Amino acid sequence: MAIVVVGSVAFDSIETPKGSREMALGGSANFFSISASHFAPVNLVAVVGDDFPQDHIEKLNAKGIGTEGLQRAAGKTFHWRGRYADDLNEAQTLATDLNVFADFNPDLPQKYKESDTVFLANIDPVLQRSVLEQVENPSLVALDTMNFWIEGKNADLKTTLEKIDMLFVNDTEAKMLAGAETIVQAARKIQEMGPKTVVIKRGEYGAMLFHGDDMAFCPAYPLDEVFDPTGAGDTFAGGFLGWLDKRGEVSSQTLREALLVGTVMASYVVEDFSFDRTMTLGIKDVDDRVKVLQKLTALPGDFGVL
Amino acid sequence: MAIVVVGSVAFDSIETPKGSREMALGGSANFFSISASHFAPVNLVAVVGDDFPQDHIEKLNAKGIGTEGLQRAAGKTFHWRGRYADDLNEAQTLATDLNVFADFNPDLPQKYKESDTVFLANIDPVLQRSVLEQVENPSLVALDTMNFWIEGKNADLKTTLEKIDMLFVNDTEAKMLAGAETIVQAARKIQEMGPKTVVIKRGEYGAMLFHGDDMAFCPAYPLDEVFDPTGAGDTFAGGFLGWLDKRGEVSSQTLREALLVGTVMASYVVEDFSFDRTMTLGIKDVDDRVKVLQKLTALPGDFGVL
Repeated sequence: MAIVVVGSVAFDSIETPKGSREMALGGSANFFSISASHFAPVNLVAVVGDDFPQDHIEKLNAKGIGTEGLQRAAGKTFHWRGRYADDLNEAQTLATDLNVFADFNPDLPQKYKESDTVFLANIDPVLQRSVLEQVENPSLVALDTMNFWIEGKNADLKTTLEKIDMLFVNDTEAKMLAGAETIVQAARKIQEMGPKTVVIKRGEYGAMLFHGDDMAFCPAYPLDEVFDPTGAGDTFAGGFLGWLDKRGEVSSQTLREALLVGTVMASYVVEDFSFDRTMTLGIKDVDDRVKVLQKLTALPGDFGVL
Repeated sequence: MAIVVVGSVAFDSIETPKGSREMALGGSANFFSISASHFAPVNLVAVVGDDFPQDHIEKLNAKGIGTEGLQRAAGKTFHWRGRYADDLNEAQTLATDLNVFADFNPDLPQKYKESDTVFLANIDPVLQRSVLEQVENPSLVALDTMNFWIEGKNADLKTTLEKIDMLFVNDTEAKMLAGAETIVQAARKIQEMGPKTVVIKRGEYGAMLFHGDDMAFCPAYPLDEVFDPTGAGDTFAGGFLGWLDKRGEVSSQTLREALLVGTVMASYVVEDFSFDRTMTLGIKDVDDRVKVLQKLTALPGDFGVL
């Protein structure tokens, strides 16, 4: 099995209550693929400028991440500048310099077109659709989006949603997309738009899965300290889809496994800037935290309320 | 086994996005005892004015709730006026008229002094302590508090905390009380202040239990619609402690059961104004939602990450 991801490869300049870093490596496709690569082969589609370090591309390759679809264009790499105040659930965007990303036209190498799993990270829904149309016979197509596209390209987003299997979205944006008051209402309405599976991300409050009529919930891993939440959502999606691709089957059981794995991957990435922590993680580290989460979430079965 | 609760019996005038009600029956001791009465005998300590309907007191008695400790004083009953905007997690207080509550001096009838379980609902920590001192040999003492006392009577609150077994507190207030950044840090620091068990309430995001080194989490019951969140916390505590009192034992197992039962009771109370819904609830209704929550939270055991 193999995954193709389209998204951004970027520099992030970040300020958090714990510290700051200029021009950290970031971008949705980076966070996603590094996370997913622990479980499945990943190929990446994105664009960088001539200022992007070759060294990092080699590190991705060393992790088995294919970069044949990573275009290099004349100009500067996409740059995001943001700040987190005490509420780490919400980033304040200070600057977004699209740079070479403004003219990004994703073109998939032949072998990418045979991917089983497709992740359309949070970019223009028109670009997402153009990538999807190039993949020949995917078994699972997932998409992430945000308020910017829900408001600015609503019709295009909805056309794209009709063609996908799974949506990753945060709770506020789910309500906005669906025009709903609660996440249960929102998920049901989004399912009617196309994706049979909806994964609602709630940051430090965990994630909720809707799959047909089935629902599952996993709290965030309880951390003593959160350093930098940048990339948590894409890292979560990377663990989630990496695990599903490895298992080769979407079911109530494998989705719940994926929910645990994604949650654990996100818990690691927020412990340091960029993907410093997920880059060096071992599979034993993942397993350790999965076990803690299993214990934390184990509630008793029938105990005779009646 | 039996429970004694001290708190408020009040009128609430409430505005929510769904509607409004003037002078609804409310107050922490009311919400708590109606919830707990589904599982264990409860006796109530509070004060009302001469405007309080005798009819409601008879309804409490009909549910097996003892009101011998409910004082009636000359004057008006405690009245709270509040409003919820779209974020139902946060009430905006418009008016608090303490009325007869201002001179409340709780005095326990003899039979209340033999209670096994004590719930000190969210009132002045000095009053909470005076009630506790009157109970002869309780096996479980729980307390609820809020920012008003954390800021205004910090030293008194801390003295009271030394004497209790279990604290119910919401996440923001837990961080405030402990001077901590995360709820894990906050719970650990609060445990050092006295209570071995800390239950962190997170409204629509669920509740987290810390018991010694043990942690457990339960999401809120996924509702299609929330009508009025008033009393959710006390109703949660009522189900939680009612169940523990019925089980007669505090353990990792019974605390997790209590977490489910409390969560379910809270899910019912928010479906209507006041305790209209919990007043008429049957035990089958409780069991139905416990089963849904068990399914929602069931995550796979060992599935071979390594």
